[in-house]
Amino acid sequence: MALNLKPISGTANRVIVEPAAAEEKTASGIYIPDTAKEKPSKGTVVSVSDEDSEGKKPTVKVGDVVLYGKYGGTELPIDGKDYLIMRENDIYAVVQ
Amino acid sequence: MALNLKPISGTANRVIVEPAAAEEKTASGIYIPDTAKEKPSKGTVVSVSDEDSEGKKPTVKVGDVVLYGKYGGTELPIDGKDYLIMRENDIYAVVQ
Amino acid sequence: MALNLKPISGTANRVIVEPAAAEEKTASGIYIPDTAKEKPSKGTVVSVSDEDSEGKKPTVKVGDVVLYGKYGGTELPIDGKDYLIMRENDIYAVVQ
Amino acid sequence: MALNLKPISGTANRVIVEPAAAEEKTASGIYIPDTAKEKPSKGTVVSVSDEDSEGKKPTVKVGDVVLYGKYGGTELPIDGKDYLIMRENDIYAVVQ
Amino acid sequence: MALNLKPISGTANRVIVEPAAAEEKTASGIYIPDTAKEKPSKGTVVSVSDEDSEGKKPTVKVGDVVLYGKYGGTELPIDGKDYLIMRENDIYAVVQ
Amino acid sequence: MALNLKPISGTANRVIVEPAAAEEKTASGIYIPDTAKEKPSKGTVVSVSDEDSEGKKPTVKVGDVVLYGKYGGTELPIDGKDYLIMRENDIYAVVQ
Amino acid sequence: MALNLKPISGTANRVIVEPAAAEEKTASGIYIPDTAKEKPSKGTVVSVSDEDSEGKKPTVKVGDVVLYGKYGGTELPIDGKDYLIMRENDIYAVVQ
Repeated sequence: MALNLKPISGTANRVIVEPAAAEEKTASGIYIPDTAKEKPSKGTVVSVSDEDSEGKKPTVKVGDVVLYGKYGGTELPIDGKDYLIMRENDIYAVVQ
Repeated sequence: MALNLKPISGTANRVIVEPAAAEEKTASGIYIPDTAKEKPSKGTVVSVSDEDSEGKKPTVKVGDVVLYGKYGGTELPIDGKDYLIMRENDIYAVVQ
Repeated sequence: MALNLKPISGTANRVIVEPAAAEEKTASGIYIPDTAKEKPSKGTVVSVSDEDSEGKKPTVKVGDVVLYGKYGGTELPIDGKDYLIMRENDIYAVVQ
Repeated sequence: MALNLKPISGTANRVIVEPAAAEEKTASGIYIPDTAKEKPSKGTVVSVSDEDSEGKKPTVKVGDVVLYGKYGGTELPIDGKDYLIMRENDIYAVVQ
Repeated sequence: MALNLKPISGTANRVIVEPAAAEEKTASGIYIPDTAKEKPSKGTVVSVSDEDSEGKKPTVKVGDVVLYGKYGGTELPIDGKDYLIMRENDIYAVVQ
Repeated sequence: MALNLKPISGTANRVIVEPAAAEEKTASGIYIPDTAKEKPSKGTVVSVSDEDSEGKKPTVKVGDVVLYGKYGGTELPIDGKDYLIMRENDIYAVVQ
Repeated sequence: MALNLKPISGTANRVIVEPAAAEEKTASGIYIPDTAKEKPSKGTVVSVSDEDSEGKKPTVKVGDVVLYGKYGGTELPIDGKDYLIMRENDIYAVVQ
């Protein structure tokens, strides 16, 4: 999780997410079956931008487990790991 | 209804809704026949975001029975139950 | 007209309208022939949202007879009656 | 011109216009030949909304003779007469 | 140039322009050859709206010779003369 | 460069540019080869509008050598010379 | 890196980027394999605009190593080198 990349926020905050391994069942007990249509994906936030151009700070923070849309974000493969960079708005919910 | 998920509000508030069982007739006496075109669906709010990026608090609250558009929201299957996450704007009305 | 449903106003106010019976000629003497192209429809407001996200209160009130676009609103069949839920902006005019 | 209908202004002011008889040559001497492409139409304002959602009052008033786009407005046939309801923005100019 | 028509400004100022005769070479010495792609047209402003909905006054005034896009404006044939009504934004430049 | 034309700024500032002769290598040493995809063009600003509708003054000034998109602007052939009128936003950069 | 070009900021800040040589592995250890879909590119900022039309200063500065979308920016070939000019918003992240 020591990622030396800082997302740039333009008109919206951006975050970098490390997707969870497929089929995983987290400690929080949330399990997402494969049969779901437009199944949201799960991952961990590893880097967040500073506030966006309107001064709004990101809501999520590094370490948060989040659900996001299957088509959210852009692939960011770094040093053999696959990350996603996305607008914070592409994140649906935070596991609490 | 103990859902450990908090929706993220971006430019709009989001809510998680647990759809009502089909054909159900609630205590409020509202019955929605199958013959309706673009029949709105009914459900119960189980989680709501904090205020959106413009500081507007959600209007609905956990426990509200709501009607929403048939195509509103994204499926969110969790632990065997089917939830929907949607923008509050996709909700038409609250049963009172 | 005792409808236990409250519309949610998002970015715009919403109202629930009970359409008038077809071909009806109201006390106000307004008669809309069938030959009109894109004939507006007539109905009675039965429920209105609170102010919208910009603090604007609805202009119409419960009991108002209104004209609205033929394609305005979403069908809302409840207990055997057909209602329409629409943005207040879909209403053209109020009969006075 | 005693029309018991008040337009609703949403995001824009609305007016009800009674179209002039075709080929008419008004006292103001403005004559619009048939050969014009996208010929603007002429009519008389018979009802105007109150100020729109941003507090802007309509510029035209009841009795104004106006030119408007051929495709502006929605037909509003009432008691045998053909009116048009349109956004004030669909009006090009006022005859002075 | 005694035109008894006042443009309505909605979200943008509007002007009425009397197009210059084709191929004309004005006193200002500006000559626009026929071979130009998307050749701008030249005309004289004969009527302008009052300030638009945001309080901005028009920049051009009656009598200004202006260049405007070939597809700008709507034809406004009045009393045998061909005028154009357009948004001030459709005007490119003023001859000085 | 004595051009008696003043661009109108609407929602954006406009400038008139005299394109540089093709293949030219300027004193600034900037040379743009023909093989570039979507090669930006180079030219000299000959006239600029006053501030736009939001009060923003243009950034470029008469005499600036600028790079602009190949498809930016509208042709403005005047007295045998080919000018371009464009939004200031169509200009990428100023040679310094 | 002595580039005598200053980007113009319109509604958004612009930067000029010198793309990194392909397949390079920087000191920061970030390596982007070829197999990535929509692989972001890496480069060095060589020139930035002043603040944009809303007074927002650019977040990146000359010398920053940045990741940007494969389709971001416009080619700007100067004196035999290939630069890209892009909106700051097309930059995803800064290597730290």
